[in-house]
Amino acid sequence: MSERSLRIAAVRITPILIEDAPLLNLQGVHQPWATRAIIEVETDGGVVGVGETYGDTEHLQALELFGRELPGLSVASSNLLWRVAERVLEPGTVASSLTDGKPSSWVTGVASLRKLHAICVSAFEVAFLDALGRSLGVPVHELLGGKVRDRVDYAAYLFYKWERHPGENTPVDDWGAALDPPGVVAQAHRFIDRYGFKSIKLKGGVFEPAREIAAVRALKDAFPDLPVRLDPNGIWSPETAVEVARELSGVVEYLEDPTSGQDNMAGVRRETGIDLATNMCVTTTDEIRSAVELDAVQVILCDHHFWGGLRATQQLAGICEALGLGLSMHSNTHLGISLAAMTHAAAAAPGDLYACDTHRPWQPEDVIEQPVEFVDGAVIVSDEPGLGVELDRARLALLHKRWMTSDVRRRDDVGAMRTADPMWVKPAFPRW
Amino acid sequence: MSERSLRIAAVRITPILIEDAPLLNLQGVHQPWATRAIIEVETDGGVVGVGETYGDTEHLQALELFGRELPGLSVASSNLLWRVAERVLEPGTVASSLTDGKPSSWVTGVASLRKLHAICVSAFEVAFLDALGRSLGVPVHELLGGKVRDRVDYAAYLFYKWERHPGENTPVDDWGAALDPPGVVAQAHRFIDRYGFKSIKLKGGVFEPAREIAAVRALKDAFPDLPVRLDPNGIWSPETAVEVARELSGVVEYLEDPTSGQDNMAGVRRETGIDLATNMCVTTTDEIRSAVELDAVQVILCDHHFWGGLRATQQLAGICEALGLGLSMHSNTHLGISLAAMTHAAAAAPGDLYACDTHRPWQPEDVIEQPVEFVDGAVIVSDEPGLGVELDRARLALLHKRWMTSDVRRRDDVGAMRTADPMWVKPAFPRW
Repeated sequence: MSERSLRIAAVRITPILIEDAPLLNLQGVHQPWATRAIIEVETDGGVVGVGETYGDTEHLQALELFGRELPGLSVASSNLLWRVAERVLEPGTVASSLTDGKPSSWVTGVASLRKLHAICVSAFEVAFLDALGRSLGVPVHELLGGKVRDRVDYAAYLFYKWERHPGENTPVDDWGAALDPPGVVAQAHRFIDRYGFKSIKLKGGVFEPAREIAAVRALKDAFPDLPVRLDPNGIWSPETAVEVARELSGVVEYLEDPTSGQDNMAGVRRETGIDLATNMCVTTTDEIRSAVELDAVQVILCDHHFWGGLRATQQLAGICEALGLGLSMHSNTHLGISLAAMTHAAAAAPGDLYACDTHRPWQPEDVIEQPVEFVDGAVIVSDEPGLGVELDRARLALLHKRWMTSDVRRRDDVGAMRTADPMWVKPAFPRW
Repeated sequence: MSERSLRIAAVRITPILIEDAPLLNLQGVHQPWATRAIIEVETDGGVVGVGETYGDTEHLQALELFGRELPGLSVASSNLLWRVAERVLEPGTVASSLTDGKPSSWVTGVASLRKLHAICVSAFEVAFLDALGRSLGVPVHELLGGKVRDRVDYAAYLFYKWERHPGENTPVDDWGAALDPPGVVAQAHRFIDRYGFKSIKLKGGVFEPAREIAAVRALKDAFPDLPVRLDPNGIWSPETAVEVARELSGVVEYLEDPTSGQDNMAGVRRETGIDLATNMCVTTTDEIRSAVELDAVQVILCDHHFWGGLRATQQLAGICEALGLGLSMHSNTHLGISLAAMTHAAAAAPGDLYACDTHRPWQPEDVIEQPVEFVDGAVIVSDEPGLGVELDRARLALLHKRWMTSDVRRRDDVGAMRTADPMWVKPAFPRW
């Protein structure tokens, strides 16, 4: 294998729009279309590696800046991506919303320069690992030390949802509505019948807590052997969070972000002893120490897209092991490339893992030839070279064309909700 | 690259004896011979990967037990080595001294089952990475995400020493004696002239603290621009450690293990504010959290031989970054295989590193064809496939023959000291 053949000759970043379902959350409702960016790095050996990340305008601009620096670099040099990020991504060179210290509208926690670096590194690191694995003839998990499990468990990720997107003549979707306990339980049945999931997560923060507690209880009654989680994205006050935690102790496996901020989370833990997970108050490495000192979280929900990639996920797994924290994976809307990447990282993580979150069943479309399937609630770890997925270029071109001819450029759940409810405003925290 | 060609066909563990210098420490003096074990794993593709670790009888027995399980495993599956360790290395199957919770005579911290697992995993993980890199045609650092530096800095590791080993007619060695400040400074000059080191470490705990303080001051006077460290291996009382810390604040870069135990270390830190490093009170991942909570250490001295290998070193680097701890590397007597392994791990560690310790200049012998050289105090990171070292089989056979015909089977600094001083006993802690 000559060194030269691993050097990057070309980088392509393709924004696309994919269909999305009318899933409800505290901000509003998912739009009919979701943006995503597909990354390709091509070596001068002619091998292409792929990655997938956020596709809003601001991230696309940062990714473009970053990608320009990569030709000539070896795909075996993913550690150097952090240096590239430090060099080219600074406040002034990127949209201020990417680094302004405020909660990001892309659901990646608080925006910071470090977070932006991690997001861009991750997008390309996955593509680097795919290209390196393909070039060397080994699966990505072997570049991470090899799989320690043959299958990675995922959770049924339930959402309150409407049966169709707002607007006139929008079609009723395949899933139907889920707005009350029976609807949520029916959704769970469908998920579990179809994919075999053995854990259940409900996205909450949509309705008043009593209604969501009732849904969780109904889920637990319907699936007494399956762990159930509830995630209101931090919208409850600490007092409400304590009340819910008392109601659901012994019912949920853990509560995700029942309230906002490490101090408030620590208070809920102190008052109730319930296990708490987060993808909001610990989203970068430097937020871990205080969370541990406060005992604010017991489980970290890693998302390789904003933690810095698959090696960063391994790092986080090691940190969690060292500090006695649990680990699972967070998900935003994503396609099969990211599902494959999550699966390789989880396969190579030596310690225990909670079943990972995934939005994948909610998106009917993909950009790979063979979809990554769930079998008995798990993805079988691929031993094919690289990630083990093949880009479907015709599909990619079609979804890119959709992006070109649409004006959807970012996620806007608040705006989508306003289509149905013109008076809707993004709720102030805490709402309840 | 077929999967089959990466599978292990044979494992060889070769104990050897190498020459060692009469270096003094708190336990006594290094023997004329030091044990070491050279590991080889051969794939059915015919590629051999090498590793190097402790060579005492008890570890050899554990390594043999472990090595027997490896044929058939892929050298790309180093994460699975931990599972192998859990399966075959249990109290009852190994010498009780390897797991008994007491400080180990092999200077690996407190003996525990987890530590023994890490030691055996490390020995083979390095060989796996070497074999995988050679099989794929990439350097080990690229299996760890690629180098972020082209050179890894090492420190001049000074020892109080005699000019010759005890006994009749033993030859005066090339380095001469170093028993007082001028002798230590002369040794430093020689190290720095020959290798260009830009950091200095003195192994202390040999003489009363005032004498060692004088040596450190003499070193700082002679090399005002170089950082200097002192390491008495935890033999001082907390009170003495506080006194020394006050004397040497602003003189040393950090103190290594001035006293024993995290509580005592934390007390020294609290009283003096001096930076403390350790390879004694934090030697496994599960000792980190309490050390951070107590603020007992500011720098962890990683040793891949007992932390679990090169990926474990990367993990530790990530943990240190997350917790705001500094990182350097600890060294025991070792050869060029381990120096190459340390260099690859350090090259791929994204954050800052203090200059690493190495005993390498003290051992005139090696088992590789071309020695790993120090240039301006650093080792240039190899881009050759694998570790970048070639086993010298004739040399290995010779050093193994020496082991076969000798009765030296373990490190015994106390016994060696008794040859010179029949009344010598291992000092009780604290000595001063």
